[in-house]
Amino acid sequence: MSQNTTNSNHSSNGASGDSETNYKFPKAQRVYIQGSRPDLRVPVREISLHDTRNALNIAEPNQPVTVYETSGPWGDPEATCDVRDGLPALRRSWIIERGDVEEYQGRRVEPVDNGYRSAEEERYAREKAKGRLEEFPGLRRSPLRARPGRTVTQMHYARRGVITPEMEFVALRENLDREAALEMSRSDRNALGFEHAGESFGASIPRLITPEFVRDEIARGRAILPANVNHPESEPMIIGRNFLVKINANIGNSAVASSIEEEVDKMRWSTLWGADTVMDLSTGKNIHATREWIIRNSPVPIGTVPIYQALEKAGGKAEDLTWEIFRDTLVEQAEQGVDYFTIHAGVRLPYIPLTARRATGIVSRGGSILAKWCLAHHRESFLYTHFREICEIMAAYDVSFSLGDGLRPGSIADANDEAQFAELETLGELTKIAWEYDCQVMIEGPGHVPMHLIKENMDRQLAACNEAPFYTLGPLVTDIAPGYDHITSAIGAAMIGWFGTAMLCYVTPKEHLGLPDRKDVKDGVIAYKIAAHAADLAKGHPGAQRRDNALSKARFEFRWEDQFNLSLDPQTAREYHDETLPQEGAKTAHFCSMCGPHFCSMKITQDVRDYAAQKQLDESTALEAGMKEKAEEFKQTGAEIYIKA
Amino acid sequence: MSQNTTNSNHSSNGASGDSETNYKFPKAQRVYIQGSRPDLRVPVREISLHDTRNALNIAEPNQPVTVYETSGPWGDPEATCDVRDGLPALRRSWIIERGDVEEYQGRRVEPVDNGYRSAEEERYAREKAKGRLEEFPGLRRSPLRARPGRTVTQMHYARRGVITPEMEFVALRENLDREAALEMSRSDRNALGFEHAGESFGASIPRLITPEFVRDEIARGRAILPANVNHPESEPMIIGRNFLVKINANIGNSAVASSIEEEVDKMRWSTLWGADTVMDLSTGKNIHATREWIIRNSPVPIGTVPIYQALEKAGGKAEDLTWEIFRDTLVEQAEQGVDYFTIHAGVRLPYIPLTARRATGIVSRGGSILAKWCLAHHRESFLYTHFREICEIMAAYDVSFSLGDGLRPGSIADANDEAQFAELETLGELTKIAWEYDCQVMIEGPGHVPMHLIKENMDRQLAACNEAPFYTLGPLVTDIAPGYDHITSAIGAAMIGWFGTAMLCYVTPKEHLGLPDRKDVKDGVIAYKIAAHAADLAKGHPGAQRRDNALSKARFEFRWEDQFNLSLDPQTAREYHDETLPQEGAKTAHFCSMCGPHFCSMKITQDVRDYAAQKQLDESTALEAGMKEKAEEFKQTGAEIYIKA
Repeated sequence: MSQNTTNSNHSSNGASGDSETNYKFPKAQRVYIQGSRPDLRVPVREISLHDTRNALNIAEPNQPVTVYETSGPWGDPEATCDVRDGLPALRRSWIIERGDVEEYQGRRVEPVDNGYRSAEEERYAREKAKGRLEEFPGLRRSPLRARPGRTVTQMHYARRGVITPEMEFVALRENLDREAALEMSRSDRNALGFEHAGESFGASIPRLITPEFVRDEIARGRAILPANVNHPESEPMIIGRNFLVKINANIGNSAVASSIEEEVDKMRWSTLWGADTVMDLSTGKNIHATREWIIRNSPVPIGTVPIYQALEKAGGKAEDLTWEIFRDTLVEQAEQGVDYFTIHAGVRLPYIPLTARRATGIVSRGGSILAKWCLAHHRESFLYTHFREICEIMAAYDVSFSLGDGLRPGSIADANDEAQFAELETLGELTKIAWEYDCQVMIEGPGHVPMHLIKENMDRQLAACNEAPFYTLGPLVTDIAPGYDHITSAIGAAMIGWFGTAMLCYVTPKEHLGLPDRKDVKDGVIAYKIAAHAADLAKGHPGAQRRDNALSKARFEFRWEDQFNLSLDPQTAREYHDETLPQEGAKTAHFCSMCGPHFCSMKITQDVRDYAAQKQLDESTALEAGMKEKAEEFKQTGAEIYIKA
Repeated sequence: MSQNTTNSNHSSNGASGDSETNYKFPKAQRVYIQGSRPDLRVPVREISLHDTRNALNIAEPNQPVTVYETSGPWGDPEATCDVRDGLPALRRSWIIERGDVEEYQGRRVEPVDNGYRSAEEERYAREKAKGRLEEFPGLRRSPLRARPGRTVTQMHYARRGVITPEMEFVALRENLDREAALEMSRSDRNALGFEHAGESFGASIPRLITPEFVRDEIARGRAILPANVNHPESEPMIIGRNFLVKINANIGNSAVASSIEEEVDKMRWSTLWGADTVMDLSTGKNIHATREWIIRNSPVPIGTVPIYQALEKAGGKAEDLTWEIFRDTLVEQAEQGVDYFTIHAGVRLPYIPLTARRATGIVSRGGSILAKWCLAHHRESFLYTHFREICEIMAAYDVSFSLGDGLRPGSIADANDEAQFAELETLGELTKIAWEYDCQVMIEGPGHVPMHLIKENMDRQLAACNEAPFYTLGPLVTDIAPGYDHITSAIGAAMIGWFGTAMLCYVTPKEHLGLPDRKDVKDGVIAYKIAAHAADLAKGHPGAQRRDNALSKARFEFRWEDQFNLSLDPQTAREYHDETLPQEGAKTAHFCSMCGPHFCSMKITQDVRDYAAQKQLDESTALEAGMKEKAEEFKQTGAEIYIKA
């Protein structure tokens, strides 16, 4: 193996914590839930907690909290990973065993796939880049595709009643602490594991996710399990209204900045913090090579917008795009293992004039490319006219559709307008066609929408697209905060997630302004983990509140370390705490910097509780019977209530 | 004047931009709207914009956008301000002219007001601090209060049909671009000034705010205008459901960190970015001295929680608090000019047991102090039993009530529980009593609430408190993101603002972890400006969408500078842009770093528009009639559509 690699290209997760990407969550253990077969092991993160010390100084253990894990083998300290090898092919045997795929020669990779006009130009560029544009050196498998006459989509299996290992994997993965959650109470507010009932707006969220339920949801198109047969490295996950709300992170080497290593690292970085899928939106040179590095190393499904690469192949001229170029690009990317494609087939010729007087016209890149093509040729786009052929390709590899909203609003003014909803109706028609081919489908949504118009988007999408999963970008609830659009959009994302959106596409602070760096990617992912979790809570997703309860209990009991460790970002939580009170002792102190020792509000209920415990009495009895006695005691021992600073 | 001052203590806004606090918004002009009398001049910020160049290269001017301004004279380049002098007493003559106040000797400031046991201890501390704890050196006025038998509250005047200069000021201030907004269209989506209709859940927002409307809203208690007669430096503002949603920023030197200079600077810093009121939550030493510095320099109303200082005077022992100590503190702070007091009179003895089995008990500092006192004495708190006497004091200075929610939930688990709503009912009863005294009242609200339970808070508050303005802390929609609670809470704040909350109390990223620094204060303020504006948009506040429309138009037309300047934080927007494309030329380029020159989606609609303009045709006619011609043109001139990188 070549030794002239950069550090970021050659990082083992067993190595020292030099690289931020190798961050280990404190007190968190990688645990695998064993499925029905030895090679079906679902990774979760188990956060262990300190004991609670009661008034008699007796330790009461706190159960560990299990959370969803997206970092794959990269986050497993036992695994040895190298970006130059790629990840193990977890699903390979499951795919082969089904006996419906064939290995074949595959399409030849051409210089144009990487944006070069000739092999010579490509060689020259690579030499000049001094190894930074190296092709993926790891294992190259021959691509798989469905045997003639066969369909290899998860929807196909589901409709035939087959529960695949992928479906079982997903069921175990979604359940997390659901078994424990079954014991949580929705009626007794004072129970330790109390959980609010939620309002799910007609979703059908079961108390426990079974493999059968997963199958049924996929069969009826209400959920998708993106799993290209050529991306066996990915850990199965599900996107649907009756499952945990997911988030997507975008990465991509645009024409202006970025490099291969940076993109691979961004993928790892975003899945470290919780991205459920990653879209590679590269538009510059070396698209093919970059994608290979990303897919071979990605434990999560990868999505792309193939029209971007097709446009590069057409020399950047939208009007020179053809069905043949596009078709070739679909096959190229399907063979590499892309799990879902954004296809803007809803941008129809008659809808384009509807955008002419909009405040911000067409803001979707894919949408504008297609609109330009349609105007130049005065014809319906080849995506629309060749839609059934696209379905055939998607079905042969199990690439899921992400039907793009090319006419989504790019400003508050344009929200919920005629162009947007006209396209949505077409996406509904296309969904039905894709389902004829047993293709998995989700629908992309806006964009920029003021709060009071968000629900209409969800309601219309459910109706028009027969409950196919909705996948929205934000929406941003105002246009006036460039630099903070992870926040403007997290507000809309939380709400639309609550209303039923299955996956939320993140927005970083750099949206509208520039390319996100590592900090922006992390900020975007965390803002969207907040939105997704807030949505799960509001929907009443069983077990979702366990983490909130555990963290709040830790906060109340001044178990600072537990509070940090249970948070979405333990590193930042601890740093912020230590800025004000850096001493280690402060992390066991029964007060914090906000109020200081004399003003700590959390102590008073604890005093009441401790009193009851000491008396061996029921707490509420104690409160009523012992109120006067307590009053005396308070006067006597008041000075002891606060621990000295 | 002593010369041993620090720079931050002695900063003139006319001085160089050394200090971040002297940041000037680019292309923004301080403009004053002249009222009915010469000394009634309402400051606004007018952001001027570049021309739009159409296809024929003819400049079309863009109207400047006027935005609400909270930085007072500090933000006026014509004004000369010095923290050591304090701000000019804008309202002094309005107050005196009414002829219902008297100057009097006032309470003597005691060492205990600053947390010292003796004058000697105080002197020693000040010497040791080498001038950093200096008393405010500027003008000391004798305090004012209502003459015997008179009431000097804005509610009192309003109920008698009097329109005060303060009310007129507020009407002009709230209108901003409303006159222009009157021309905005709610029906024609394609009109340049289109604005969505909004959903206000039964609010009564007029198209134009008149002084009469302000008076009526104050008279019926649906809005408050916090304006202590001893804080003449403040610029009148209004808090009510039918006005723009406001935000509050908290500052305060806790026992553990911070200093006087830092607190004054935090006040200026937070009002620079848009805080409408500031609460001084100091709890350490030098409370009185710090407050004097802050109030004398504050252009916005100042709120406090007097029980904090009262507790300091009681030696930090809640059980040693007395009505006399508390009363003395109210008078002390009313004489200094505090505009609203948080009074936790709703923490009643019978409600305390309801919190015993909560997940996080009592998390309000004030609430816990009162609860402790109630338990220690087994009596109703002196706030509740002396409530009418409190009203008399408030009425004599026009200090507004902010009835505290001492039993607000501190975790998702405790949201909307019995304790919380029991207290809310009591706050409703107290509101009616306060109104008997013509006292202005707002009601504080939670806290931590999952999204689906937020609206119940608003609905119950409106019903229980007869539409008195609601003032909420967040709410945070999940507990699991310490370090990012400005985001978790901005989600809840935007929603509850939409539902009808009049003022949103900010939460910084340091919430639950430590004391906010400058960056945290700014992050909190901006997150809340987003939430408040998103709420205004969703309510359909007339004219609110103008800024969004202007910014989106600038974005669409690649007027980068205008896009930055119209944003809530032009500094950050520009910085983020320049990180990727630092060249000045990039700011006039017709593409950006996200998509690069070949993928710019914003251009296509512009092409369609330009085409129509050149043909001197109506755009939609052009689109239909000229589609084929356009197709040809596209083929011919396609290469010119994108400007070269």
